[in-house]
Amino acid sequence: MYIPTFEDVLAAHARIEPYIHRTPVLTSSYLNALTGAELFFKCENFQKAGAFKVRGASNAVFGLSAAEAPRGVATHSSGNHALSLSYAAGRRGIPCAVVMPRTAPQAKKDAVRGYGGTITECEPSTTSREFVFAQVQAATGADFVHPYNDPRVIAGQATCSRELMEQVPGLDQVIAPIGGGGMISGTCLTLSNIAPGVAIYAAEPEQADDAARSFRAGHIIADDAPNTVADGLKVPLKDLTWHFVQRHVTDILTASEQEIIDAMRLTWARMKIVIEPSCAVPLATILKNPDVFRGRRVGVIITGGNVDLDKLPWMQG
Amino acid sequence: MYIPTFEDVLAAHARIEPYIHRTPVLTSSYLNALTGAELFFKCENFQKAGAFKVRGASNAVFGLSAAEAPRGVATHSSGNHALSLSYAAGRRGIPCAVVMPRTAPQAKKDAVRGYGGTITECEPSTTSREFVFAQVQAATGADFVHPYNDPRVIAGQATCSRELMEQVPGLDQVIAPIGGGGMISGTCLTLSNIAPGVAIYAAEPEQADDAARSFRAGHIIADDAPNTVADGLKVPLKDLTWHFVQRHVTDILTASEQEIIDAMRLTWARMKIVIEPSCAVPLATILKNPDVFRGRRVGVIITGGNVDLDKLPWMQG
Repeated sequence: MYIPTFEDVLAAHARIEPYIHRTPVLTSSYLNALTGAELFFKCENFQKAGAFKVRGASNAVFGLSAAEAPRGVATHSSGNHALSLSYAAGRRGIPCAVVMPRTAPQAKKDAVRGYGGTITECEPSTTSREFVFAQVQAATGADFVHPYNDPRVIAGQATCSRELMEQVPGLDQVIAPIGGGGMISGTCLTLSNIAPGVAIYAAEPEQADDAARSFRAGHIIADDAPNTVADGLKVPLKDLTWHFVQRHVTDILTASEQEIIDAMRLTWARMKIVIEPSCAVPLATILKNPDVFRGRRVGVIITGGNVDLDKLPWMQG
Repeated sequence: MYIPTFEDVLAAHARIEPYIHRTPVLTSSYLNALTGAELFFKCENFQKAGAFKVRGASNAVFGLSAAEAPRGVATHSSGNHALSLSYAAGRRGIPCAVVMPRTAPQAKKDAVRGYGGTITECEPSTTSREFVFAQVQAATGADFVHPYNDPRVIAGQATCSRELMEQVPGLDQVIAPIGGGGMISGTCLTLSNIAPGVAIYAAEPEQADDAARSFRAGHIIADDAPNTVADGLKVPLKDLTWHFVQRHVTDILTASEQEIIDAMRLTWARMKIVIEPSCAVPLATILKNPDVFRGRRVGVIITGGNVDLDKLPWMQG
């Protein structure tokens, strides 16, 4: 297992800069008054392909050698990683093969194809996905880019908090959602090198709290099919992300489904930005644990904005 | 009728700067590719109180003399002007009396009260509104701040395009929605002074196209109770805004209800920002008239983001 270093982060940043946005940091005096903290929202919902995942995906794609590149990249994902990898491969002009469950939303399939990715459908089960993916990889010889348990991906995600530290001086804390742990690992990698005094918090849905339980138990615990509105956060930690989480995270806080939906709606209503349920989890945990954040300067990573505008969670039920 | 000058704009900008945001300008490579133009979105949806109207309201409130101020300000509005005037009066610590129809959305009433405004309800008719407003003004002696037909308000709105011109060099065109004409008049006032070569387009719903018909007729035509999803644009031009529109506007373009809703949804989906139906009208007209905008650098004023998140127009019907 190769552990990425801060030199990898610097190399990644130079490599991907032409293909990503340096996203803005927004503030809200209303949310500051409500929480008693100074919140700085790093808006990766404005990122290319609508999510931070394009950082890691671009680092993997543009790091391929001239000999490797023509065979392209491949992944299995029904979410932002599939979009991001397709976008990055399209920018480099190489093939991108994505294995997606046939039940994935049509909008996501259209977006992958819109960026030039090729979709092979599988049944919505792990067995089918792994079987189909192995076939696709054998047929194409493509480089497998895991959504998070890949040092190139983590080094790419780490560029986000590097920008944040440049944009906002004097942060006390940074908080980001945790699913598989790619963004949090990147945050740990950057901050442990350039700002080791900054506390790192991870935020997780109560209904998919495998990372929080892993953190307390001292070893990876994987949930069996968790269910949460924050659908980007259902996946478990893996060895590489666990390496960073157990060493550098201060605490993992959780929020209920209703608290996540309320925080999402509050962000839309007050900040006028479209964010996914996943990235409302940090604000939900800040509102739930005011003593942890009051009086502090807090970086909050808004991870993405790819949401189904026809199915908003506060309208269901 | 006092016609505000560019000196009034400069004075307004200095006066209101501590109380407003210098809002960011966002771009979208997707929308640029779709339209063939270079679009620069001036995001007043991120403005204090959620709309550009806080510029004019703040200019009126902070321009009151020490003798006038204690009697406060008053207006009739069920929309962003009511919120903005309440916000500005709250910042100065003076009373703000708002006459609102009793049928106005509870969320709007709550927001006005949240900023410290006092609401007097009227029946939803012009007769009742004018009668109740006259009573309120007589009782308080408050200064009447019209939502748009007021030189202080127009000078305040004019600061928006002054910022835009500083933020984006070399614009060919600027487009903004038109209702009563406050924002367009401010845009005319600024551009005719500092960038007279920039073409000014106004965008209006087909179903409330009184400004377009006025423009072609050469005199003000008021609609009788127009109905449109762009509810900020139902009001008619008045003498002061007509002065600017007839002198400086290049053309007034219109879009259908469905085109407005589609453009709104497209903005949410692609730019990840929450915008009101009113400010989707410019993009709708750009998409409808590609030859007017293709190859040009176009400033698009996003006027506000105060929308009912429980009633999104693409979900009704």
